[in-house]
Amino acid sequence: MAHLERLPEVFKAIDEQQEEFIELLREAVEIKSVSGDPSRRGDCIRMSEWTRDQLKALGIDASLWDLGTEKTPSGETIPLPPAVFGVHGRDKAKKTLLVYGHLDVQPAEKEDGWHTDPFKLIEKDGKLYGRGSTDDKGPVIAWIAVLKVLQRLGIDLPINLKFVLECMEESNSIGLEDGLKRNIDKISDVTYSCISDNYWLGKNKPCLTYGLRGICYYFIEISCARQDMHSGVCGGSVPEAMTDLIWIMNQLVDINGKILIPGIEDLVAPLTKEEDETYENIDFCMETFKNDMGVHGLMASEMKKLLQNRWRFPSLSLHGIEGAFSQPGSKTVIPAKVTGKFSIRIVPDMTPEKIDQLVFDYLNKLWASRGSPNKFKVHGGHGGKPWLADYRDPNFSAGSRAIERVFGIAPDFTREGGSIPITLTIQELTGKSVVLLPIGAADDMAHSQNEKLNRENFVKGMKVLAAYIFELAA
Amino acid sequence: MAHLERLPEVFKAIDEQQEEFIELLREAVEIKSVSGDPSRRGDCIRMSEWTRDQLKALGIDASLWDLGTEKTPSGETIPLPPAVFGVHGRDKAKKTLLVYGHLDVQPAEKEDGWHTDPFKLIEKDGKLYGRGSTDDKGPVIAWIAVLKVLQRLGIDLPINLKFVLECMEESNSIGLEDGLKRNIDKISDVTYSCISDNYWLGKNKPCLTYGLRGICYYFIEISCARQDMHSGVCGGSVPEAMTDLIWIMNQLVDINGKILIPGIEDLVAPLTKEEDETYENIDFCMETFKNDMGVHGLMASEMKKLLQNRWRFPSLSLHGIEGAFSQPGSKTVIPAKVTGKFSIRIVPDMTPEKIDQLVFDYLNKLWASRGSPNKFKVHGGHGGKPWLADYRDPNFSAGSRAIERVFGIAPDFTREGGSIPITLTIQELTGKSVVLLPIGAADDMAHSQNEKLNRENFVKGMKVLAAYIFELAA
Repeated sequence: MAHLERLPEVFKAIDEQQEEFIELLREAVEIKSVSGDPSRRGDCIRMSEWTRDQLKALGIDASLWDLGTEKTPSGETIPLPPAVFGVHGRDKAKKTLLVYGHLDVQPAEKEDGWHTDPFKLIEKDGKLYGRGSTDDKGPVIAWIAVLKVLQRLGIDLPINLKFVLECMEESNSIGLEDGLKRNIDKISDVTYSCISDNYWLGKNKPCLTYGLRGICYYFIEISCARQDMHSGVCGGSVPEAMTDLIWIMNQLVDINGKILIPGIEDLVAPLTKEEDETYENIDFCMETFKNDMGVHGLMASEMKKLLQNRWRFPSLSLHGIEGAFSQPGSKTVIPAKVTGKFSIRIVPDMTPEKIDQLVFDYLNKLWASRGSPNKFKVHGGHGGKPWLADYRDPNFSAGSRAIERVFGIAPDFTREGGSIPITLTIQELTGKSVVLLPIGAADDMAHSQNEKLNRENFVKGMKVLAAYIFELAA
Repeated sequence: MAHLERLPEVFKAIDEQQEEFIELLREAVEIKSVSGDPSRRGDCIRMSEWTRDQLKALGIDASLWDLGTEKTPSGETIPLPPAVFGVHGRDKAKKTLLVYGHLDVQPAEKEDGWHTDPFKLIEKDGKLYGRGSTDDKGPVIAWIAVLKVLQRLGIDLPINLKFVLECMEESNSIGLEDGLKRNIDKISDVTYSCISDNYWLGKNKPCLTYGLRGICYYFIEISCARQDMHSGVCGGSVPEAMTDLIWIMNQLVDINGKILIPGIEDLVAPLTKEEDETYENIDFCMETFKNDMGVHGLMASEMKKLLQNRWRFPSLSLHGIEGAFSQPGSKTVIPAKVTGKFSIRIVPDMTPEKIDQLVFDYLNKLWASRGSPNKFKVHGGHGGKPWLADYRDPNFSAGSRAIERVFGIAPDFTREGGSIPITLTIQELTGKSVVLLPIGAADDMAHSQNEKLNRENFVKGMKVLAAYIFELAA
């Protein structure tokens, strides 16, 4: 308990030194590490190098993992930004925590509707605005800050740390899984893993996340002609691909969100009474959620049902159509080839393989019944399995106690409706528990305009991470 | 008949001087008069001036009509290109023919799939490739060529001519209707009008066109949130606008092309036995049409029915969705606001007003039955009435005899499935017959890549126009 006794001292130092860590975040935000934009690849590489140097300055054995190259949409081959791997402590008597984070960000332009320059960290009303502030540079800097503080206080870490920080997360983490597999010996001694790359369920209460939905993405291609036609010349003469596509897309999900593909619901793990009860005391306000999202309605009238819809039941969303007229204004085109896109968020015990089969069977059967002369093809895109952990294990317990030490209340144990595939990858490669420990709040607008991280979340996040390190060893 | 006796001489001169007229078309094609591109507005103005100068060189009293300004999508106010108005002959004893044509073109870039520079006239296998070659610079130059030939042969025109040539046709003819109304006194003495801005039904036989479908364009707007959402976070929680839109769009038209909006079909003028018979001897090959379009099927198995579907029955096409994901690849977005777009081609006795009423009533009723909390709005875009002329009138008869003199066969009398709103405008403003006299062939690819005009169509077109002038006076 020696370490835990020094926590007040650590918290005080974090409070006192916070400006320095905000300056560090400011430096990081200014590096435009947009992994989805090939012209910013140099910035991504610089971001990895900057982070390695930060770790090195802490005395961490930090290096870069070359992850190879990728082909851009224009056919160019460009290097992947290297991942940063860092080792802090090699004491075999201690547990080893793997910390994952990412250094790249989503694209952002002032013109998109940002009130400030997205690549400058600007504080207003206690909110630190800037691309990457919450997703995910802030949480990475929080780890660095904690190590700086402990070092200055002369506190030796009670656990070993390993850092895996990538710069391609917003671009499907290309290269990382292979990189981890090639370096499997370097992470085989990991006892626990921690990922801070999601958000609180609301704006006031911290949480720990133990489940994620998986995803299956589908493309329905229908073509009726070699090239686009004029609706004056061909309307009434040609069976149109759009008519077929809209007909088939209308048979995927009903107004209540019920997925119309037979067999899907049979794969969902039954909701036990015990599990159902865990939803009762979650701190979640439906009205706040509705207002924050600016939506006109919700799919359930009670909170428990709404959260279950989001976390532990599948959902199907129609994303759009490629090849049809999508610009403003009017155009009298009959599109020659249209591709409808939809995805299904999957939950235990669904697997992408089983869902693919059900989706392909259903759509092919529907198409056969249509009797259209047009050409039809359905194929799947990326599929990711759902993830579900045991929130009663020591990793979660340590996180929970750490949060209680900072916030004075135990966190909610939550799941998420989205997918963070690296979670399952790390769990499978280490064979050990992974906890999702979010630092930012629900309204941080990751991926959107005016992304921010509350100063309070940033500072308290550092304190939680420090306490978590100590609790893991306790 | 004195004029008609000189036709062989005129035809011979056209044959002999054709290279000169191709050179003139070459000059015209090189002026990039893309009316839809504000940055090309200078070229459009230059094109009007160039044409005015061509008419002046023929001794025609040619001037420019200032049509005012327009606002570009970026909010800039730019001048509309002026229309060219020309008067050739003021003999009150003669009939007066109004000739309409347009000088602007659709956008074209080599990268779109052109085999040659779209703004260079390139001849290959008797085909003159270039943007505007057939739509509509070629037909305008054909008129100029005829006047040059007649002048050189010292043949005085047996009719007066008035030219109305605009440079905004591909951009909804902005300003022209007002311009015509302001100058109504200048066209009040017109006896007939002729428009060469459509195409043969096939590739071999000329036609005269006496009917056009009208159009009503609609926008269905549905919104579910203030901004786009993540399908992981909100899928299953929020009633999605796309699901509602696809549901409603699926209730507009069935696989057989039947419009599902009640009352629409009751407005269609009954098909009489006599009219039905006019479809029997049209020169149209379904197989060629199918192959040229590269379509997988047709909406009718007999030619008569297919042409009727195209010309004299309404059709409904789904054009696309604005606001949904339309790029290549996969994106897990729940679009906040989506706008479905469709149009109905209308025929006698349908009017845009009546159709608007039926469409709005039907969609509002459907929406009310849906019970969705989302926001719904339907509104109409541009509406154009159908046009139907009497192909037994003297204007058509003169055109028919002219064609017979050049091709040795009488033309087919056809209608078109598309809309050329200026036709009805000119008919209503002059109160006199308008004939659509196409010069180009069905495969000229107007608006598409590799637009062309066959040299033979160009040369024979000039001959037809010369003969038509003579026949009108006969």
